[in-house]
Amino acid sequence: MISEEEEQIFQMFPIGFVRRDGKDVWVEVLEPFRPALKQLQHFSHVMVFWWAHKHDNEKSRNTLQCEPPYAKGKITGVFATRAEYRPNPIAMTTCKILKVNETKGILTVADMDAYNGTPIVDLKAYFPVCDRVKEARIPEWLSDWPEWMPEEGIGL
Amino acid sequence: MISEEEEQIFQMFPIGFVRRDGKDVWVEVLEPFRPALKQLQHFSHVMVFWWAHKHDNEKSRNTLQCEPPYAKGKITGVFATRAEYRPNPIAMTTCKILKVNETKGILTVADMDAYNGTPIVDLKAYFPVCDRVKEARIPEWLSDWPEWMPEEGIGL
Repeated sequence: MISEEEEQIFQMFPIGFVRRDGKDVWVEVLEPFRPALKQLQHFSHVMVFWWAHKHDNEKSRNTLQCEPPYAKGKITGVFATRAEYRPNPIAMTTCKILKVNETKGILTVADMDAYNGTPIVDLKAYFPVCDRVKEARIPEWLSDWPEWMPEEGIGL
Repeated sequence: MISEEEEQIFQMFPIGFVRRDGKDVWVEVLEPFRPALKQLQHFSHVMVFWWAHKHDNEKSRNTLQCEPPYAKGKITGVFATRAEYRPNPIAMTTCKILKVNETKGILTVADMDAYNGTPIVDLKAYFPVCDRVKEARIPEWLSDWPEWMPEEGIGL
């Protein structure tokens, strides 16, 4: 039996979109939400929350386990990955900020692993006190990955 | 004029809930989503994505600027804060994992700044290569905050 609590639906809408032109990547923030960018330029990094719209379908939303490309032969739950296919296809990329133009709604970032036109649902300044973990343990199948985010971030 | 792109609505549902009992805090993962926890115990930290349901209302979702409690006299955009009131009230807390019980759907964490009953919409393992920023700049009004996430995390 499904409880009322479990039946809730939460609705989000785009506050902007990823735009790409050659090597340039930016978030175009829609006009009504531009005042929310105020002071963001004082941070070096921003967490960009985006909707993996290509995976907003039955198949992807019902995928609970996978064999990640970096872990051959290892079946992992999607909560132990950053895969875009998951029950709620929300993705998040930590990005280096290059420029913030509040008036024009342009947040230019160094790089980002989302396609042109990807909807953005939230932006959060990167607060080291919240998100910078001093000692982080990872599984052995990730042990040859860098211990830090690359200088320019994660791209496509 | 509002474009078709801007009119999109994205739907999420709870994959679990925050449960608290005294000092104990855990995420109860709903039965259908428990296989997605597989291998998560090999990570030290998890990013818990939750829905700030108390702020899923007109007033909070239309709040674009605020005077944060830690920055008296400073008006900032909500994208430059971690406030729960924002256009899409999605919140994210990086948590230290204490225990993962895939069968029972119990993810015990050291601490978390969400109330009992808060809906969880996603879980993502903490990947240092994605989220651990070596050199992060923050504004002067945050300069007396720790440079790292506290050992047990951020609580209520």
